[in-house]
Amino acid sequence: MTRTVYVNGDYLPEDEAKISIFDRAFLMADGVYEVTSVLGGKLIDFDGHLKRLERSLNELEIKKPAAFDDLIEIHRKLVELNGIDEGLVYLQVTRGAPGDRDFAFPDPETTEPTLVLFTQAKPGLADSPAAKTGIKVISIDDIRWGRRDIKTVQLLYPSMGKMMAKKAGADDAWMVEDGFVTEGTSNNAYIVKDGVIITRNLGTDILHGITRAAVLRFAREAQMKVEERPFTIDEVKAADEAFFTSASAFVMPVVAMDGETIGDGVPGPVSLRLREIYLEESRAVAV
Amino acid sequence: MTRTVYVNGDYLPEDEAKISIFDRAFLMADGVYEVTSVLGGKLIDFDGHLKRLERSLNELEIKKPAAFDDLIEIHRKLVELNGIDEGLVYLQVTRGAPGDRDFAFPDPETTEPTLVLFTQAKPGLADSPAAKTGIKVISIDDIRWGRRDIKTVQLLYPSMGKMMAKKAGADDAWMVEDGFVTEGTSNNAYIVKDGVIITRNLGTDILHGITRAAVLRFAREAQMKVEERPFTIDEVKAADEAFFTSASAFVMPVVAMDGETIGDGVPGPVSLRLREIYLEESRAVAV
Repeated sequence: MTRTVYVNGDYLPEDEAKISIFDRAFLMADGVYEVTSVLGGKLIDFDGHLKRLERSLNELEIKKPAAFDDLIEIHRKLVELNGIDEGLVYLQVTRGAPGDRDFAFPDPETTEPTLVLFTQAKPGLADSPAAKTGIKVISIDDIRWGRRDIKTVQLLYPSMGKMMAKKAGADDAWMVEDGFVTEGTSNNAYIVKDGVIITRNLGTDILHGITRAAVLRFAREAQMKVEERPFTIDEVKAADEAFFTSASAFVMPVVAMDGETIGDGVPGPVSLRLREIYLEESRAVAV
Repeated sequence: MTRTVYVNGDYLPEDEAKISIFDRAFLMADGVYEVTSVLGGKLIDFDGHLKRLERSLNELEIKKPAAFDDLIEIHRKLVELNGIDEGLVYLQVTRGAPGDRDFAFPDPETTEPTLVLFTQAKPGLADSPAAKTGIKVISIDDIRWGRRDIKTVQLLYPSMGKMMAKKAGADDAWMVEDGFVTEGTSNNAYIVKDGVIITRNLGTDILHGITRAAVLRFAREAQMKVEERPFTIDEVKAADEAFFTSASAFVMPVVAMDGETIGDGVPGPVSLRLREIYLEESRAVAV
């Protein structure tokens, strides 16, 4: 089946979905994005993603696309047209395609933002085999720009990080800055030690994960102890458990770091319980 | 006149020049670029730009586009088709457009890199009025990623920097890291003090400017003293002269920093002499 995608008001077959070479995201990485999970054909944490999108746009002074208020309908239509039961909806807004290349922002009166959405079918997303065995990470230097709280398309280094992990026989990379873990290449990082869930505090140095916010809320509601502070690679290796959260992987156990086993080398009880709670609670309020 | 641009083997009217929404540059800033100046219809420092392009591609493990060996002909054809006497040729190579979004690099056997080129007419480029009065800069924090020696399309922060400069009533921004100037938003930065030309040494923290290399060579040939080392904003303010170099502005005098006059507040003799030498020598070997 050819996927139907959305580009600036049109629903198009994926191979006809094109944007101008002058689009600011193509020439200057001047765009932001969101990824929303779909479970049972419904959108998970949609409000959170929409709010963060609005924040990203505000931080970069990118105008809201005309269809901003229709975003939920566009998501739902794409899910329906493409028959997505479990999967993702990817959304990107760029500063648009002025007629030429210029470092200066184009006049928002004459240049409309670009809005692109597409789905990715991921059958078995909730029942992921990786969540049962856990995944392996390596540590790499965090050399990204300083505003990681804005969800921009500047993903070259995270992409390189995934390839470094692959070459090292691992699944993902956790990034380290000034001796402390910032986050994974596309997820927030956690350890569990003596029953306490530890994850880096929010700031400009990490993404304000929508799944992170929900998981921490559920953890606190379940009377688990949460500490928001930076932690080191040594703490990861000495932890009882480790895991990451992201919109597309929910809660994912991490069982090895740089070739060293974490805890018992299998997904830990806190990670598994949080995954269970997150999936259950999020499904219940999915839209 | 509608501009003719080049996209993956085709010469197209600019408004028909489109790329897939799955292009890695659009989704992940996974692309590199070069800008070559045109004077008298000829390409300035073309070999230098081609070599740097090759280095950028190697560093990121992006395959050379099929048309790599034909790049000079494509440049020349675009210059001719668009009647460019003075202006620029912009070139971008991306890791291509696989059929979907994935952080992992696509298989280079099946995904061809994207190659895009277009011209920008800039009549009066060599005889720029700004070079006669000098331009004003502000200082901003350098929060870019750590591999600025690779000429990637991750230009969001430089673009924001230009807008900060504009809002402050200046023309450009020089970026500062750990107390030292790295470079301008799209150019290399220099000061002149007691007859010595000072510019930051090469490393991963600045772009290895093609114009920088040529200007330093010409300066040394003209028996001028050159020191390659980091310098501070205080040194800029106390300098006799300041200037920047770039492929599109050649040598550009800088006469104010953060509202404070540099030297006499007019383009200095070293800056003007270097601009003259650069233009003369580069024109002589333009292709």
